[in-house]
Formats: sequence, C-alpha cells, structure tokens
Amino acid sequence: MKRTSRDIRTANRSLVLRHAIAASPVSRPALARATGLSQATVATLVGELLELGVLVEAGFEESGGGRPRGLVAVDAEGGALVGVDVAETYVHVEVVDLALRVLGRAHAELTPEDGDPARAARRIADAVRDATERAAAGRRVLGVGISMPGMVDREGGVSVFAANWNWHGVPLLALLAEHLPHPLHLDNPMRACVVAELWFGAARGRDDAVVVNLGTGVGAGLAFGGGPHRGASNSAGEWGHTTLVLDGRPCHCGRRGCVETYVGAPGILRTVAELDPGSALLRAGDQTAALDALAAAIERGDPTAEAALRRTAHCLGAAIGDLVNLLDPEVVVLTGWVARRLGRRLLDVVRPAVATHALPRPSAAVEILLSPIGANPVSLGAATFALEGALSPGAGAPR
Amino acid sequence: MKRTSRDIRTANRSLVLRHAIAASPVSRPALARATGLSQATVATLVGELLELGVLVEAGFEESGGGRPRGLVAVDAEGGALVGVDVAETYVHVEVVDLALRVLGRAHAELTPEDGDPARAARRIADAVRDATERAAAGRRVLGVGISMPGMVDREGGVSVFAANWNWHGVPLLALLAEHLPHPLHLDNPMRACVVAELWFGAARGRDDAVVVNLGTGVGAGLAFGGGPHRGASNSAGEWGHTTLVLDGRPCHCGRRGCVETYVGAPGILRTVAELDPGSALLRAGDQTAALDALAAAIERGDPTAEAALRRTAHCLGAAIGDLVNLLDPEVVVLTGWVARRLGRRLLDVVRPAVATHALPRPSAAVEILLSPIGANPVSLGAATFALEGALSPGAGAPR
Ligand SMILES: [Zn+2]
Ligand SMILES: [Zn+2]
Repeated sequence: MKRTSRDIRTANRSLVLRHAIAASPVSRPALARATGLSQATVATLVGELLELGVLVEAGFEESGGGRPRGLVAVDAEGGALVGVDVAETYVHVEVVDLALRVLGRAHAELTPEDGDPARAARRIADAVRDATERAAAGRRVLGVGISMPGMVDREGGVSVFAANWNWHGVPLLALLAEHLPHPLHLDNPMRACVVAELWFGAARGRDDAVVVNLGTGVGAGLAFGGGPHRGASNSAGEWGHTTLVLDGRPCHCGRRGCVETYVGAPGILRTVAELDPGSALLRAGDQTAALDALAAAIERGDPTAEAALRRTAHCLGAAIGDLVNLLDPEVVVLTGWVARRLGRRLLDVVRPAVATHALPRPSAAVEILLSPIGANPVSLGAATFALEGALSPGAGAPR
Repeated sequence: MKRTSRDIRTANRSLVLRHAIAASPVSRPALARATGLSQATVATLVGELLELGVLVEAGFEESGGGRPRGLVAVDAEGGALVGVDVAETYVHVEVVDLALRVLGRAHAELTPEDGDPARAARRIADAVRDATERAAAGRRVLGVGISMPGMVDREGGVSVFAANWNWHGVPLLALLAEHLPHPLHLDNPMRACVVAELWFGAARGRDDAVVVNLGTGVGAGLAFGGGPHRGASNSAGEWGHTTLVLDGRPCHCGRRGCVETYVGAPGILRTVAELDPGSALLRAGDQTAALDALAAAIERGDPTAEAALRRTAHCLGAAIGDLVNLLDPEVVVLTGWVARRLGRRLLDVVRPAVATHALPRPSAAVEILLSPIGANPVSLGAATFALEGALSPGAGAPR
C-alpha cells in the first residue's frame, strides 16, 4: 500500500495528539521532543489540531528568563467518540471524550439469529444509540469505530469474511449508515487491541510492539514506528494461523498445527483432555466457565490444571519467542479474555518460557506485560479509529 | 527505540533520493507524488540533497503552458560508496557511484585463521583499499558499509556475536578505523539484503516487503513503510530461529525445530540423507558442491532430488506462509546462494506451497519473486548503509 501524504499527515496528527493526551497541558517544544518531529512540523500540526477543536490554548509556562511559552491541552469537551466491539455473542459499546475518558457504555447479547446482516446492523445501531443518548448528551459525536472479527476491507467498510456468522462480503458500514448519521470506521479486533495499547495501555510511547490477543481465536496486533501495521490487504496479525507444529493438530482454517489450536481457549481445553480425559474441568459448562474452572484449579494446585498451564506455557513461550526473534519488539502485551482470566499465573510461566525460546539479544530487549486496560480494550481501540478518522485531512472540522 | 527527528529526516532524504535514482531527471512535484510527502517537504529535502552534492539541477521540463518546471538528477560523479560483505570464507567488496552503478569489485578468500579480530580487520581493509584504488579513482569515497553476520550493535560498531568466528563483542569499526580513513557503517546481512531489494531489486517502490535469505543459515529482512525494520536491539529478522516443528530437529542455536534446520543448506542435505542415506548427492564434496549436485539432479529428474525439493518446498511454504499470515507483505523476495542455485525450480514449487499454507486474503495480496540482483546483494546493500550514513544530518557535506 502506497502511503499518501494524507496518511502521513493523519499519522503525524495522531502522534502529536497521543502525546498531548498523555501530558496536557504541554508546550510545543515538549511535543517536538516527545514525538521526534521538528519544531516547525509540530507547530503546524498543533495549529491544525487547534483548528479542528481537538486542542485548546491553555495558558503559558515560564521558560527560565525567556518569554513565557504557550501551552496547549486536549479539549475533552470538544466531542465524543464511540467504539463498538462486535463479538460472536455480544455487542459492546463505549463512549469516550476527547481525552479518551469513558463517558458511558452499552452492552447487548447477540443470538445466532442476529447474524443476519440487516438484523446485525440494527442491533449494533440500537446499542450505539442507547450508549450515546445516555452518555454523550450535549457533545457532538465525532465518529463511530466498529471492530468486526475476521477479514475486513477497511476502506470499503466491508466484512470480507467473518467465520462466526459465515459472512462473505457484507457491506456493514453501508447497512449501519441507514441507522446512524455519524462518520463510521471499520477495522478488526487485532487492530483495535494494538491501537488501544498504543493510546491507553502498555505500548504508550513505544514504537515497536506486539499485542497478543488470547481468546477463542488468537491473533497478534503489530505496531512499528509508533503506528499499527496493517499490511497489503489489512490482514496482518494472523498469528493464530501460523504454524507451531508442522502437520500438528487440525485447525478450523483447514491447516494443521496452527498456534491457535494450542493456545486458544479450545486448544487449552484440548490439552487438559489429553492430560486427563476424565477431568472435571471439562464438565464445567461452556468454554468461559471451563477457563474459570481451570484458573481456580491452578490456584488450588490441581496437578492436571498445573500440567495444562505448563504445557500451554511451553507452546505460548515458543510462539511468542518466535515473534520476538522475528520482530525484536520493545514490548509484548498479553490481552484477551483468556489472558485476563489466567492473568499473573500465565505471565509467570510464559516469561521464562519465552526467555528459553528466544535468542538472548532480542529476549533481553523485550518486556512481556499483561494489558493494564481494565475495560473492554477492543471498544476503546475502536473509539480511536473514530478519532483517527476525525484527524484525517478532508474529514472536515469536527465543529 | 525512539525515533529522533534526525532519523526521520534521514529516512525522508533516503526516500526522495531512492525515487530520484529510479527516475532521474525528475521534477519536484513528481517526487512528491512518488513519495507521498508534501510538496513543501520535498522542496526542502531536494534543497538539502543539492547542498550535499548528491543531486544536481538538470534543466527544465515544459509543463503544459505554465512556466517550465525545474528538474533534478542524481550526480553520479558526486562520490563513491563502498559495500563489504564479510562472510565465513570470503570478503567481497563492491564500489558504486551515487547512481548506485557498480564501478568495481574486490574479492578475497578468508581462512579460519583470519577470524582473529585484528587480522580480520586487516584483511577487510586490504580488500577495501584494493577495490577503491582501482575503481574509485578520482572520486571521493563517501563511506564504507560493512555487513557482518550475527548480532550487530549498529550504533556502537560492535559485532556482538558472530558464530562463524565465535566473536563476542568485537569492536570491528574501531579496529577498521585504524586502517581506513572513511566514515564506517556496520549492520548485518539481513539488513543489507532488504535494503538492496528496496534500492535496487524486487522491493523497489514497495512499502511492506520480506526478503527471505536462504544460505547456510537463513533469515528474513523486513521492510515496513518503505524502510528496513531493525527492532528494539537491531536483531529483527531471526526467522531462521523461529519454530517450524515444535521439539523438532536440533539446531546449533540450542533450540529444536528451527526453520533453518529444514530449509538452510545443511537442513536440505539432511532431508536428502533421510530420504536416501546412500545418496551420491551427499558425496559431492562441500555443501556448495552438494547443492550444485542437487540442482543438477533435480534438472535430470532424479527421484531422491525431486522428493527432497518437494519436502523442502513443504517446509518453506509453511514457513513463508507464516510470514504472509503474520505480516501481510506486498512482496516476498527469495535471495541467498541456495535460492540462486535452485532458482526457478524452487520458486515453482514454493509458490503453490505458500498458497496452500497462507490464508486466502493475504495470499492473494502477495507476490513471491526471485531476487533480480545478479551481483552480490549483501555488498550492494552494505554500500547503501554508507549512502544512508552520508545522508544523515550532521554527517557533514560530502564535498
Ligand atoms: Zn489455523
Ligand atoms: Zn535455531
């Protein structure tokens, strides 16, 4: 994909705003230092962000004898952003202000019947309206970002393929536009997770980061040079379908030995079943309940549960070690509902497993962390899609 | 690694120069279109490159009724760049002009005794002097780029670890500076290969590329956003030591199942031995001769050789398919002496193997190509390290 000057300007505006959000009020020279951009470029970008109503002038600071330096700050009241996490069984909405503080949420359960495209669009739009009517009162909604699993055509607003509802080429944004008047932005959960960590989480201020998303499926959100890496067809990050064991466990994608078949929730439960086919953990109910039961069994020192954790860490250590050897990132962030449930116990076994597997130099350079984002990171990341959209030249001033 | 404004300026100067080399003489608006940078930024960068003596004014072109547009061109005579490929058994030097055309070469065989650091530096310096005295006559040498295998501390100019000579922390650039008066730049062969493809080869004009280097060892040079990806510790690209088969073949790195143990030259020969322990291919002599014998046996339809090729393609298809799924690049370029020897026959079996293994969307978006660079791509890439060094603000005007 050829970067256009529009892409570069959007990326630079985002970079400046991200630092302004982290440090408001802040001077232009401090923003230049933090971003690595020249003072002249920062002055231009700050001017544009002031004009967009995203930043406001915020007084002066003394500068050791010289003339006082102008400060700028994020205008939290300048608008509201909406982020939507569309998952197999629910739609979750978060509304945030321009300082990216959460104003309110909405949550709705989805049934398999909601997989009909027109009906899905209605359910999503209802949840967005529900959240914005309650939370964004008085604020202008600058845009809505939607995270949709599977393969997404971002520019066209199309869900190219979504396994959960067997969607092929569903024009989701066009369907949503019949219900919602706001600018709409579509991308996938991996992109949402990495953007959330860059703006709010463990990758703040980092250039090169990998966000490992562990759930039913698994994926890796990648960031290089401080921004998300999307790839030639916006498909980058399909780490779950990279090979851990050539000709190994069969995967629903049709291949064998995919990372996902070992460290996704069903893969972990399969490991439990291989260790002890009669384990009570396998009768806990659905897979969320089974993972809760596994986490509790690890806590009380159950031998099968501990063996399953060790075996999972062996696989995950190798798979993350591969990412470290290949990409040499500054930070690997573990996120997703499986990582959240196993938490500290998972981190404590994964760190040494990665250190065993990765080469010494990149291993010494990387930090492995749990995501610090308590709320739904996919919704928060999706809200920043809307922010990046609002920052794009040509999107029109938000007010 | 925090990008500094100096890094960004160097990267932008490189981007403009790369397009100027591809299209000289060229107008500023055409450079702006090709790079995605704004016209104002391009005007500034062209001014800097004119001042550095890398570009020269080159007349005017008519612009449909308006006033004629100024053209700039690369000043090929403006200086010479030297690229050095230090390998286990040889040192190879190329001298190029500023249009990156080869002016001359030098080649010297190395023995194990040359692994002594002071002696290695002397042998390298002798080869550089040999090449520049013959080829760069009259031109100012702007810098020397050196590619050294293993882990390299680029800023410090130190070979952190090189398996071939068991080097640990050898200050190679400091040793070379005793013999050579030029600015010296150090990096590793993976970086050299990806830079060579970006400037001269199959990745020209691409943003996201993977250069798969197949030799005794294997690695992947990565490019994102049009520039090489180095990682937090300049170790990115250690694809050879990512896992293809969990707990598989033992690797010299101490782990098991590394990609390199299946698709590096010794791995391919091990596959031959597994298929037919008595194969005559294994008695051809050293590993270069054995790969030559294998290539010839494939040409004449030898069943063991064809089975080894199919088995290698299965492994390589899975390993490259993993890169495609994870990174979604525009192009994967096969380079290195093993790829050169097996050539078209390897490409013809690898393409369908990647298509089988990769997911449909990123697979449809990627091209898999053999490197078109006939000469030594590592030396050419190393020469561009010297060029990028000369473009770095603060490096001083080359004349
Ligand atoms: Zn799979
Ligand atoms: Zn290895």
